[in-house]
Formats: sequence, structure tokens, C-alpha cells
Amino acid sequence: MTNSLTKLSLGKLYGIGVGPGDPELITLKGLRLLKGVPVVAFPAGLAGKVGIAERIVQQWLQPDQVHLALNFPYVQDAKTLTAAWQAAAEQVWQHLAQGQDVAFVSEGDVSFYSTFTYLAQTLLQTHPEVEAQTIPGVCSPLAAAAGLGIPLTIWNQRLAILPALHTVSDLETAIATADVVVLLKVSSVYEQVWTILKQQGLLQQSYVVERATLPEQMIYADLSDRPHLKLPYFSLLIVQVYHADLG
Amino acid sequence: MTNSLTKLSLGKLYGIGVGPGDPELITLKGLRLLKGVPVVAFPAGLAGKVGIAERIVQQWLQPDQVHLALNFPYVQDAKTLTAAWQAAAEQVWQHLAQGQDVAFVSEGDVSFYSTFTYLAQTLLQTHPEVEAQTIPGVCSPLAAAAGLGIPLTIWNQRLAILPALHTVSDLETAIATADVVVLLKVSSVYEQVWTILKQQGLLQQSYVVERATLPEQMIYADLSDRPHLKLPYFSLLIVQVYHADLG
Repeated sequence: MTNSLTKLSLGKLYGIGVGPGDPELITLKGLRLLKGVPVVAFPAGLAGKVGIAERIVQQWLQPDQVHLALNFPYVQDAKTLTAAWQAAAEQVWQHLAQGQDVAFVSEGDVSFYSTFTYLAQTLLQTHPEVEAQTIPGVCSPLAAAAGLGIPLTIWNQRLAILPALHTVSDLETAIATADVVVLLKVSSVYEQVWTILKQQGLLQQSYVVERATLPEQMIYADLSDRPHLKLPYFSLLIVQVYHADLG
Repeated sequence: MTNSLTKLSLGKLYGIGVGPGDPELITLKGLRLLKGVPVVAFPAGLAGKVGIAERIVQQWLQPDQVHLALNFPYVQDAKTLTAAWQAAAEQVWQHLAQGQDVAFVSEGDVSFYSTFTYLAQTLLQTHPEVEAQTIPGVCSPLAAAAGLGIPLTIWNQRLAILPALHTVSDLETAIATADVVVLLKVSSVYEQVWTILKQQGLLQQSYVVERATLPEQMIYADLSDRPHLKLPYFSLLIVQVYHADLG
């Protein structure tokens, strides 16, 4: 007697970068996959609020889709984070194991400092048989440059990108070795950054963009008179260290 | 007698980043604007061939749109380049002056080492009254990471991006000061780059991606046995200098 049970095939995990905030900056591919899957997952918002990625895709969520808000705490503690990633991976696995494809949506791009990496790597440690695919998206430095109406980089310019929260001590090195420096997640270290930029005489060629491409986008060009700024978590700072020589 | 002539309003210039190659990686906003303008401009292909940006948007070009192939020579000579930018800006201006909006499409993103910057800056020098708007797109390092199935950066990693053609002498500095290094336009200096990566013991953590997201995409992971590679112009190299410490 042959085994008549068909082995259920696993669902596939998609990581979709849905862009910096304006819902219209999702890619056609991201939107097609998003609409086609039975399960859409996203980072849960803080304090019961709608999260950024969820807000971006809200208008395209289908009533018959399962919506999975996964909890990723905004903390630095490795133990707490690892536990949260494992719990989130387990929630996603429950659906994959039933043969359901899951799309995890993330603001910006999914290969660029994205929660998707932690989720996917945690899941693949326990379930290496899962197939994961990433769909790239527009990342925040490009959106900020578009909002400012300036090129981020041209010609022979060297670009350095630092997650400022962890690497503010590297800012002077970046200024010395790159032509354009982008600091991500700058809010909690802004005053420290401002002092370094003042010492280096770079405040006039520095820009802060809050919530790029969203209706509440704020732009600060020339930081000379702004030693203090109350910024939201998703703020970035661009320093044009050297103007490029065209041609 | 009042002047009965109505002043013709100028057309607007859009710079649209249409993504790395896969036409489905254009954004909804880029596609909407692209379809709505009377004039679509793009860099002319080499030797009469269809250019990369034109190929990406070909399926959405409307028969009643003017298609403007602008000549941007692949040379380093400043005088030749400046003359080409001026000629291209003049062609675009002819349409703007008649009140027609022009969308210039560019592969990747329009703020990231893009021909659009040279075109727009040249045009605005002569005609500062022109309104220009940029629509960000997916840039090639993100597309390459998605193709490789690896994160480009996570957590506290510092990223350096170098246009290798001009800055290969900066590679050792970038390796010493960043955790992930991306070299754009690596083809003409590949052997020099390989030698440096060999000296630094980094060949196994280095990847080359040719024509990311196009059907002819090629991936080389681990460059140990590849001292020579014949690469097309749009190839990039990613060096994972340090693996990030999760959490």
C-alpha cells in the first residue's frame, strides 16, 4: 500500500520593502505580492497605535487576509530582543507550516537595517527548509534627498551611512573619509552630533529630514541655529562634507 | 488696451528613478507620473541600442508621448560632458518652454549618482525658473542584496559606498572604517580591487552582482578563484568586512 497522504508544501516567506512612508512609493512587485498572499505580517505599532509599515499598506490589505502584528520592542537588550524575534518567528511559522505564504512588510528596504533580517534569520535557524525572498524598496536616504531637492551623491563622491544611535563616535572618521555622510536614527544623539558638526564647520551644509515623504515630513536645512531638536525616531541627517566637482 | 496674450506657463521637470532593472520595481508614483506626461526623456543607448532606463519603461510608453533619447557619452572628459549636458538641457527646455511637462527616467534612483542631476543642474543654471521634482527609486545596492538573499546592513553596521572607477585608492580606508563596503561601477578596476581584497583576506566575504534584477543577472559569491572577471558597466561588488553582532 502506498502512502496516500500528500505532504503539505510549506508556505513561502516574502520580505517586502514598502518604501519610506508615502504609500505610492511601494513598487509594483511589492504591491502584487502583498495583495496575493493569505497572510500579511508587520511590526506592531507602539502603545496600540498603527505601525509605520501597516499604515503604508493599510489601503491595500484585503478583508480575507490574516493580518499579523508582530511585537518587536524598541530596546537594546539582547535577551529581550532575541525572545521577541523567536516569538515572532514562531507566529509566522504557524502559517508557513499550513502551506500559507506570508508577506512581511517593512518600511524602507528589507535589506537595509530591517527588522525583516532578524525575523528571517531567527526563523531559518529553526526551520532551514523555509524559502525566503526579499523584494527591495526605496530606502529613507534616497527619499530624504528627493524631499530636499538635492542629489545625495554624484560623480566620484564617497558615501558613508552610519546608524548614529550606535556609531556616533565614528562620525569624525566618516567626515574625514567620505564626501557625504548620512546618519540614521539620529534623534537620541542629535545634540552630540550637532556639537561635532559645529567643531568641523559643517552645520551650514547639514540637513535633517523627519518622516521623509509622509504628509508630516519636516525639513531643517542649515543646522547653525538648531543645537536642540526634538526629533522622532525616524529622522535622518545628511552632511554634504564636500561639494562634488562636476566633470 | 490690456494685453490679451496669456503667458504660457512652463512645463515641470520630473526626475523619476525607475529602479534597478526589473520593470516591476518601478514605484506606483513613478509609473503614474510617467504615464501622465506628454514628453518622456531618457539617456540614449550606446551604438543605437535601447538604453537601460528606456528598456525598463518601454512597456508603459504611450504612442502619443514624445520620446526624447538624450545623448550622455560615457567619457571622463569634462568639456565633452558639459557640452552634452548643455545640448540635452536645451532639448528638454524646448518642451518645457511650450508648457509641456517632461519626465526624465533614470535606472536606479535619481539622487544616487544619477545622470538626472547633471541634466537638472545644467538646465537650472540657464533657466532657474524651471520647477523640478524627483521621485525616488530602488537603487542597485539594495537590489543586489535582495538578489544575493543577504542583508546589506543590519544593526550597528557602518556602510561605505564608493564609485570604484574614481575611488579605488580609497578602498583600504573604507575597509578599515566600515563594516560593509559597496563598490559601484567596478568593472574597469576589478583586478586592482581583487588584489586588495586578497591582501586583506576578504575574498570569501565578497560578492559581485551584474545587472541586478534583470533576467541576465549574474551573481559571483566568494571571489577567491576569480582574479579576472569580464564585467559589464553596471556591476557592483559588496564586501562584508565584519559580520554584525545581532543584539
